[in-house]
Formats: sequence, structure tokens, C-alpha cells
Amino acid sequence: MRRTSRDIRTANRYQVLRQVIAASPTSRQELAAATGLSLATVATLVGELLDLGMVTEVGFEDSAGGRPRGLLAVHASGGALIGVDLAETYVRVELFDLALTVLARAEEGVRPGESRPEQVVDLVATAVRSVVARAGVEGARVLGVGVSMPGQVDRDTGVCAYAPNWDWHDVPLLGLLADRVDHPLHLDNPLRACAVAELWSGAARGHEDAVVVNLGTGVGAGLVLGGGVHRGVSDSAGEWGHTTLVLDGRPCHCGGHGCVETYTGAPGIMLNLREVSPDSPLLHPGDQTATIDALARAVRAGDPVAVRVLGDTARYLAAGVGGLINLFNPEVVVLSSWVAAAFGEPLLDAVRAAVPRHALPRPLAATRIVLSPVPTDPVCLGAATFALEGALRSAGKGARHRAPAGPRARPRPLPQGPGQV
Amino acid sequence: MRRTSRDIRTANRYQVLRQVIAASPTSRQELAAATGLSLATVATLVGELLDLGMVTEVGFEDSAGGRPRGLLAVHASGGALIGVDLAETYVRVELFDLALTVLARAEEGVRPGESRPEQVVDLVATAVRSVVARAGVEGARVLGVGVSMPGQVDRDTGVCAYAPNWDWHDVPLLGLLADRVDHPLHLDNPLRACAVAELWSGAARGHEDAVVVNLGTGVGAGLVLGGGVHRGVSDSAGEWGHTTLVLDGRPCHCGGHGCVETYTGAPGIMLNLREVSPDSPLLHPGDQTATIDALARAVRAGDPVAVRVLGDTARYLAAGVGGLINLFNPEVVVLSSWVAAAFGEPLLDAVRAAVPRHALPRPLAATRIVLSPVPTDPVCLGAATFALEGALRSAGKGARHRAPAGPRARPRPLPQGPGQV
Repeated sequence: MRRTSRDIRTANRYQVLRQVIAASPTSRQELAAATGLSLATVATLVGELLDLGMVTEVGFEDSAGGRPRGLLAVHASGGALIGVDLAETYVRVELFDLALTVLARAEEGVRPGESRPEQVVDLVATAVRSVVARAGVEGARVLGVGVSMPGQVDRDTGVCAYAPNWDWHDVPLLGLLADRVDHPLHLDNPLRACAVAELWSGAARGHEDAVVVNLGTGVGAGLVLGGGVHRGVSDSAGEWGHTTLVLDGRPCHCGGHGCVETYTGAPGIMLNLREVSPDSPLLHPGDQTATIDALARAVRAGDPVAVRVLGDTARYLAAGVGGLINLFNPEVVVLSSWVAAAFGEPLLDAVRAAVPRHALPRPLAATRIVLSPVPTDPVCLGAATFALEGALRSAGKGARHRAPAGPRARPRPLPQGPGQV
Repeated sequence: MRRTSRDIRTANRYQVLRQVIAASPTSRQELAAATGLSLATVATLVGELLDLGMVTEVGFEDSAGGRPRGLLAVHASGGALIGVDLAETYVRVELFDLALTVLARAEEGVRPGESRPEQVVDLVATAVRSVVARAGVEGARVLGVGVSMPGQVDRDTGVCAYAPNWDWHDVPLLGLLADRVDHPLHLDNPLRACAVAELWSGAARGHEDAVVVNLGTGVGAGLVLGGGVHRGVSDSAGEWGHTTLVLDGRPCHCGGHGCVETYTGAPGIMLNLREVSPDSPLLHPGDQTATIDALARAVRAGDPVAVRVLGDTARYLAAGVGGLINLFNPEVVVLSSWVAAAFGEPLLDAVRAAVPRHALPRPLAATRIVLSPVPTDPVCLGAATFALEGALRSAGKGARHRAPAGPRARPRPLPQGPGQV
């Protein structure tokens, strides 16, 4: 997508609110220093955020020799955001305030054979009602609901073109949800959700170029380039899990061979374990979560098989991550998602140790490799952040009185009217 | 680098001039339609380009029912641009007019043992003088000289940190050149040169996201993202040649193993040939150019060994290119540089046939794979384009009367004074 002055203005709005959330209370002067924007631009954007009720004045601080400076903070209760993580075996829904703190959480299991679109939509609708009720927020304060769905999703039409987890084909997910959920809806995939979560609340905040490596059942790389998420021409960038790492290597469900995912995703790590110890008691056939948890515990206990499997996995991962560092020359590489969280520091240490064999000295010296510092489910947080970005995108001067922005963000008109945004 | 409104303005200026070059004669209305910019913005930018003498009014066309529209064309003789390609064995210098047409060319061989910085600088200075004289342009009309140097170059300081070809370490190349060449100087590497060449005059023109795959002695990927070249945080993005393609595969000069470059760069292709036929008469040991040329001729003649080697090379390349398509989801992948040019269509066909085994259907459907259509040395053209971009960057409202922009673009003050730009 071509970037216009309007996009820049939206990006600046994101940046200012992000910085207010990170550093409340803060002053316009500090915001200008932190963002690199002019004081005049910051003042205009802060004015918009005050009008939207997302930011609030909280007092003054002395300024050496000058007028006292107004202090600003995020107006945490100025709106609520809901993030929905549709995974293979569960639907998780979290409600956040504008400080991006979780206020309520609901989770529903998805049993095999109960993953038809209308069944999943039913679970989501129930969970959304539940978190709104439990958090005690008025429905009208919910700025939007972001939905993360693995697979090929079209955020413009709200259609899930293909979801391998549940074998969905061309499901108009947002259209179905709009009949049950009375808030603006936003659809995207977990790769992008994790990337925006890092950008707003994690290790990519304040950086222009970052790669968020998602290690879960699938593997991918959320790309933060030029301070925004890179989506590609048909909204499917980031499918790093299907980069060839071992030519003619393990078969992959994509039809290829030797893809990064087949060595570093949860099923791939189970294969790494089988190769080291086919009859290991750590192996829970058919249960990725139990196997990864058992491996992670065994690594911490010094179990030699588990340590060997971690080393093998880190070696594969480091070869791939080294390639990303060479290609993007990013400021930070973030290891995210549940497999990275389960292994934690031992995985990070092993990857850091192995990456120099694969990355060139100059880009390596410019990069930090870190674990995601996001304390909650990054997919729910990222999905909620899509709703926040959607509200900010359609906001701005006079936005509260504008008609809704069109069918993309809002599959049906808001019952509360445009004043909600 | 953070993008500011000023960057957007510069990018828009590039875009308008690029479109004028592509479509002369054209009208402001057509430019607005082609660039997506407003007519008012186009009118302002065209005004700047007219002031700079880069664009000229060439008449009027009838407009159905309206006022006649002014027609614009690039003012080809409004300035000259020089591109310098420093390769391992030669120094090539080309002079272009503002329509990016070559007016003069000079080439000097670099013999082994004659590649000390002062020797190379001497060759460049001589060749620059030669092309200016042969093209018959006044020195004062030369807007700048772009220099492409393989290796780790710092475009901000003009220092070549490390050049493996000639074993240079921390050579202040632009500083040395500035003592001999009286034009603004710009340093960058061939990866970026080929990317901007495609962006201004090739297959990436008009696209936001493109990957320019450089196949030469080394291999890399120039990244066009969001309509501009992605450089990374320490200006070293694009080192795709050192992505692991075959874990624990062929040793690479970078210290790694199985890098893309070891299978698809010219020396790698020579190894591919050795594996198929160790004593092939096509093999010219120690001479990459002769071997690649012999292979390319033999492929066209249907020689089975050469066809097999081309197939193997395309298979390696397709695995890597498939990964780039999955990761970036670009509009176009361009095969560029001398190895791609030598093999031409047979390589393109073989890569196109093999890529679907490695790229996911959705990003594959959105991408075209093409040979570079740039008819001249893309490195010289790209280097010259750096000089054009430099002139446009420092231009704009009042720029003709501004002081030079600093030591980066102009290591020494222009003897002709700032009026030149």
C-alpha cells in the first residue's frame, strides 16, 4: 500500500498514544522528544486524543524557568478493547482497558467435531458478552473487537479464505459475527497480532524495524518495517515458516520439504525429540502442549535428552533467525508465542549462542534477540490492538461526527452511533 | 529510519519525476492518476521540477470540453548523472542524461595487485573525466556521481568498512575521490543500486513491494518496500545470499554453510557444473565469466550437461525465491545482474516452473517473476540514480538557494556553487 500524508498522520497518532501508554504521566515536551515529532504536531495529536477521551490531563509539573507543563496520562477507562484468539483447540477472549491492561478473560474449549463456523461464532459471542459483563463496562464503551484467526484471512472483507485447523473454506467470519456482536469488528491473523502486540506493548516499541518470530504449532515472522506492520500485496506476508531450511528435508503440510516450521514448530520439535529418543517418556503422542511443557520442565531439570533436543531446535532456529537478520538488518528479533514462552531463557540463550554462525557481523552487531516481554496472551493483546488502531484510524479531527468508515471495520452500523468512536 | 512528512514529500518528488521519465510527454492530470497524488500536490511538485530544470513544458493537449492541458516532458539535457560500478576486475563508469539514457561509457580493467584505494580512485577519476568529455556536457551540469562498491559501505560517511574483493578495510573512499572529482558524490552497494535501477527504470517501477534478486559472483536481494529501498538499521539489509538453504551444506566464504550464494552465485554454479561433469569442457577454472557464458551458450544449444546444471541451479534458486515470496508477499520478483542476464529466458522459465513447489498459493498468485528489463548495466544506472535522488532530496522549495546539505552528499563544496542543484 502506498503511504500518504494521511497514513503518516495515522501512524503519528499511533505513536503518540503508544508513548502516552508507555510513560504516563508525561508531557507534550517529553512526547515530542520521545517520538521525534515537532511540539506543534504533538500538541495537535494530543488534542485529538483528548477529544476522543483516550487521554486525560492529570496536572502540571514545574519546568525549570518556564511555565508549568501540562501532564497527560492514558484515560484507561476511556474505552475498552476486546481481543479474540481463535486457536485450534480453544477460543480465548480478553477485554483490555486503554492502558492495555487485561480486565477480564474468558476461554472456551473447541472439541474436535465442534468447529463449524456457527459453533465457533456462538462460542465467541458468548465469551464476548461474558468479558463485558465481568469487566463491568458499558457495551457502548467497547471501541472494537479484534479477531485473530490462523490461516488465510482477508481483513478487508472479513472472510476466512482457508483455515487449516478447522478446514474452513471461504467463511464470512466477520459477517457471521456481526449478527451476534454489536461492536466494530476487525479480522487478522496471529502473526500480525503478535507483531502489533510487540509494537504497542513489547520489545518492538520505539523501533522502526523488528522481526517477531512466532513459535507455536505453526511458525511465522511478523514484520515491523518503518514503524508499521508489513502486510504485503495480498496481505499474506510473514509466512517465514515455509522458508526452505533443509533442501529436500522433512515433508511439510504445505507440500514442500525442509521448511523452517518442520524443525521449529511444536510438531517439528516433537520430531526432534523422536530422533534423539524415540521412546522418551517426555513424548505425549498427539499432544503438542503436554510434550512441549514436559520438555521445557526437563530442560530446567537438566535432563540430557531434553537439553539435546533444545540444542537441536535452537540450532535450526538460529540458522533461520540468522537469515532474517542478514535480510532485514532489524533492531530487534523477538521470540514470541507459546513454544517460546514455554522454553523461555534456555531457548533464548541457545539461540543467541548459535546465531553468530549464521548472521553476518555487521547486521548481527546491530540486533538484539529477546524473548517477548508481553505478560499476557500476545495474540489477544494484538487482536485488541487492531481494534484500537481501527478506532484511531477512523478518528482525528471531527471524526466523532463522521459517518462510520465503511463495511470493512464495521460489518453493520453501530447501534450506539458514530459518537462511540 | 522514521518516515516524516519531509520524507513523504521527497518520495513523492521521486515518484512524479519517475513517472515523467516513464511517460513523457504527460500532463499533470495523468501524473495525478498514475501516482495517486492529488492534482494540487502534483502541480506543486511539477513546479519544483520545472524550477530545477529537470522537467520542461512541451505544449498542450486538448481536454474534452475543458481547457487545454499543459504537457510536460523530462528535460533530458537539464543535467547529467554519472554511475560508477566498482567490480572485482573492472571499473565501469557511465554518464546518463535526465531521461536515464546512457550518453557515454568508460571501462578500466583492475589487474590483480593494482587494487589499492589510490589506484582505484585514479581509475575512477580518469574515467569520470573521460565520460564528461565524450558526452560533451559541461562539468557544471553534472548533478552528481554515484559509486557502487560491493561489501560493507557506509553511505553516510562515505567509508568502505570492508570490501572482500580488494581486501579493503576502512577506506574513506568518498573522501579520497573528493580530492579528484568535482561533483557531489554518493556511495552505496550494488544490491541497492540494482534495486533503485528497477524502481526508476525497470520492473519495480510503479510497485510498492518488490524484491530484486541479484545473481552475480555474490548473491543478494535488494528490497523495495513501501515504494522505497529498505536499508535496515545499520544499512546492511538485503544479504540474502547468506540465508541457509541447505543446513550443513557447502562451506561459504562468510564462515557459514549451505548459504544460498554457494549454490546460485557464479562460483556456486561452477560447483554445480563440477558435480554433474567434473571434466566438462564448459568449465573454465578460475574464470567465472567464461564459464557462465559457456554454460549459457550450451543451454541454448541444448547441451544435456548444461541443461542439467541450469535445472539444478534453478531448483536451488526457486527454493530461495519461494521463501522470499512467502516472507514479503511482493508484487514482483526481478532476477537481475550478470548471471541472470547471461542465462536469460531459460533460467527464468526453469525458476518459474520450480517456484510453486516452494511458495504458498496466495502470495504466489500475487507475484510475477521477471528478468530485469534494464537494458544497460543496472549497477551503473542505479548508482547514477543515487545521484539523482540526492539532487532531488536536497531540492524542493528554495533549495537552489540553500547551502549544500552537509558532508554526506557533498564531501567538498561544489566549485560551481549551490546554483547547480
